Amino acid sequence: MQRSEHSEGIGFVETKYFSFAYPPGELLLESGEKLGPITLAYETYGTLNTDKSNAILILHALSGDAHAAGLHSGESVPGWWDNMIGHGKAFDIDNYFVVCSNVLGGCQGSTGPSSINPATDRPYGLDFPLITIKDMVTAQAQLIRHLGIEKLLCVAGGSIGGMQGLQWVASFPKMVNAVIPIATAARHSPQQIAFNEVGRQAIMADVDWNNGHYYEGAEPAKGLAVARMIGHITYMSDISMAEKFGRRVKKDRPDTRFSPDFEVEGYLQYQGDNFVKRFDANSYLYITNASDRFDLANTTGLDKVLNSAQDIKFLVIAFKSDWLYPAYQSKRIVKACKLAHLDVTYCEINSTYGHDAFLVEVEEQEHFIRHFLRRVSNEQSF
Amino acid sequence: MQRSEHSEGIGFVETKYFSFAYPPGELLLESGEKLGPITLAYETYGTLNTDKSNAILILHALSGDAHAAGLHSGESVPGWWDNMIGHGKAFDIDNYFVVCSNVLGGCQGSTGPSSINPATDRPYGLDFPLITIKDMVTAQAQLIRHLGIEKLLCVAGGSIGGMQGLQWVASFPKMVNAVIPIATAARHSPQQIAFNEVGRQAIMADVDWNNGHYYEGAEPAKGLAVARMIGHITYMSDISMAEKFGRRVKKDRPDTRFSPDFEVEGYLQYQGDNFVKRFDANSYLYITNASDRFDLANTTGLDKVLNSAQDIKFLVIAFKSDWLYPAYQSKRIVKACKLAHLDVTYCEINSTYGHDAFLVEVEEQEHFIRHFLRRVSNEQSF
Repeated sequence: MQRSEHSEGIGFVETKYFSFAYPPGELLLESGEKLGPITLAYETYGTLNTDKSNAILILHALSGDAHAAGLHSGESVPGWWDNMIGHGKAFDIDNYFVVCSNVLGGCQGSTGPSSINPATDRPYGLDFPLITIKDMVTAQAQLIRHLGIEKLLCVAGGSIGGMQGLQWVASFPKMVNAVIPIATAARHSPQQIAFNEVGRQAIMADVDWNNGHYYEGAEPAKGLAVARMIGHITYMSDISMAEKFGRRVKKDRPDTRFSPDFEVEGYLQYQGDNFVKRFDANSYLYITNASDRFDLANTTGLDKVLNSAQDIKFLVIAFKSDWLYPAYQSKRIVKACKLAHLDVTYCEINSTYGHDAFLVEVEEQEHFIRHFLRRVSNEQSF
Repeated sequence: MQRSEHSEGIGFVETKYFSFAYPPGELLLESGEKLGPITLAYETYGTLNTDKSNAILILHALSGDAHAAGLHSGESVPGWWDNMIGHGKAFDIDNYFVVCSNVLGGCQGSTGPSSINPATDRPYGLDFPLITIKDMVTAQAQLIRHLGIEKLLCVAGGSIGGMQGLQWVASFPKMVNAVIPIATAARHSPQQIAFNEVGRQAIMADVDWNNGHYYEGAEPAKGLAVARMIGHITYMSDISMAEKFGRRVKKDRPDTRFSPDFEVEGYLQYQGDNFVKRFDANSYLYITNASDRFDLANTTGLDKVLNSAQDIKFLVIAFKSDWLYPAYQSKRIVKACKLAHLDVTYCEINSTYGHDAFLVEVEEQEHFIRHFLRRVSNEQSF
């Protein structure tokens, strides 16, 4: 990681790549299928201390990537959580070594359905095996070991990133000191599944989707844009939309039937069209599918599953206006922690931003997270 | 209307058609465009009394039609509000003469974009002019006059039907004794517009939509199904989905990638596929567009607009779990009525069914509506 000398932010950063092909050359997935070799794109910010006790793994949501903070050369927009990661920020890189990697199944440098299948020398498409949140975490653990880290100070993330955090606790309790699940759930409600399913159906309804084999032709841009538009409605709140757009009419509206009348419509179209430029439709299918099938408790109680996490500290954060991942889902995690006699703190932040709050409500999150990380650093066990 | 002798319900009913072509042969629409001739499909239940003072106009929502109650010959599923219209029901046809017509712009017998354009002898498609809620109501008023009714005892409807009820009050205050706006709004919030817009984008993204000219080829079935799926999520509530589906896995699931895993997914697909058989995609565009542009108050205050409705009684009904048309929107209508010194009653019904509640929460609605109609009947002015 390079730093521009006079920048208050992190400055310039570069994405790195870690490829692994463990004997017999493949990763055994939860489905029983094998996948390999696997590459994970990742970035790091700050410096790993000598006893390697200050590493924090940041876990991204559906459309995120390894580029969580700082600037890529030639770009003016910083990483997706730049307001939270940096000098003196919530995840303070003067104290901590921060790692973020693109998830398995993603399309921003990590192995996913748009990667080349070594068996055919063509993109996997739907030949890519179904992956789970656990598979994502298993791959991340290989990266963490590769970086020489035996135990993470903390894993943290919002939304599907929070699911990965919870899965870290369940899969690798000895590798984690603390976890910060933000605006997340131990499993999706049918309403959350339903929104994801409609997004998937929109993609698969696009004639250009071509059963997942579109990499040599036109991509299913319209379907993916519709999926993203649905997503954006669920990321905002009724109030935040009213504050941001009201019923203001769009300027410079083309005079064609059913072109956007209202600013909110123009905003959604813009978000949809922009998303298509940077995201792979099949990754959207695989990652949303993994999040829908995620069920940490499964048939066992959540408290039973968390019972093996006795030394792990929890900071659970939810937002009042988040109706996609409502606070009651975070409270269920907290309740299970309490039943398992774990060290858990719950913060419900007043915000009108809906699910997006975990990306924009910096001040209060920073306060809670800084305080929590300081405590965890002081009390950590090796 | 025929009645089967031993049925407790209304029995068999038939849809009728009223066509009008006022001089100069066309209806002047709010847009300034002209449309004609116009046909409205309608049904009636019960008997108009001699002084024609017992007529109630029922106004349907987005996907409704003229068939509000009773059975069509050869069909086993009754009209869409059969639980509310009939002998001894909320709209008691032993006392009232009930009329319901398919909206202008619809596709169930009334003139809409799938009708034949007399200028071209082919379906209008997008040559159909943009219509408004006011245009729908203006056409309904022609039907009411055609039936010999000078003043309606009541107009009533839920959702977009409620918007039409409010528009009746504003457009024809002398033709209405009372109005029952249910689960509705005087104007859509940006969130409501956003959900409609994503549905429209899903339709227009379908390659078979063909800029609205699909009547001689394949219809945009996949796009319309996605639009309907989005709609269904917004009609239910988080709780009602959890109660109805939980995370139960679908039986007999085909073993193809991303076919529905969960019951909720199968339900949405079923609803989407079924809708396509009975609804026209262009009508979906026109009617949702009309509902988004509806703004009864516009730049004037809502109370100012309602000021001309001094003799009209209001029964405003909302449902606690309805997040598509939240209760605060009904309360705004009530507040405006109060400011205008109107006779208004507000009922907020406890229900977990979300927006669908107006179709299924019979008992409490029936109680409030029966009581209200009895009072209005006794006090009505001619």
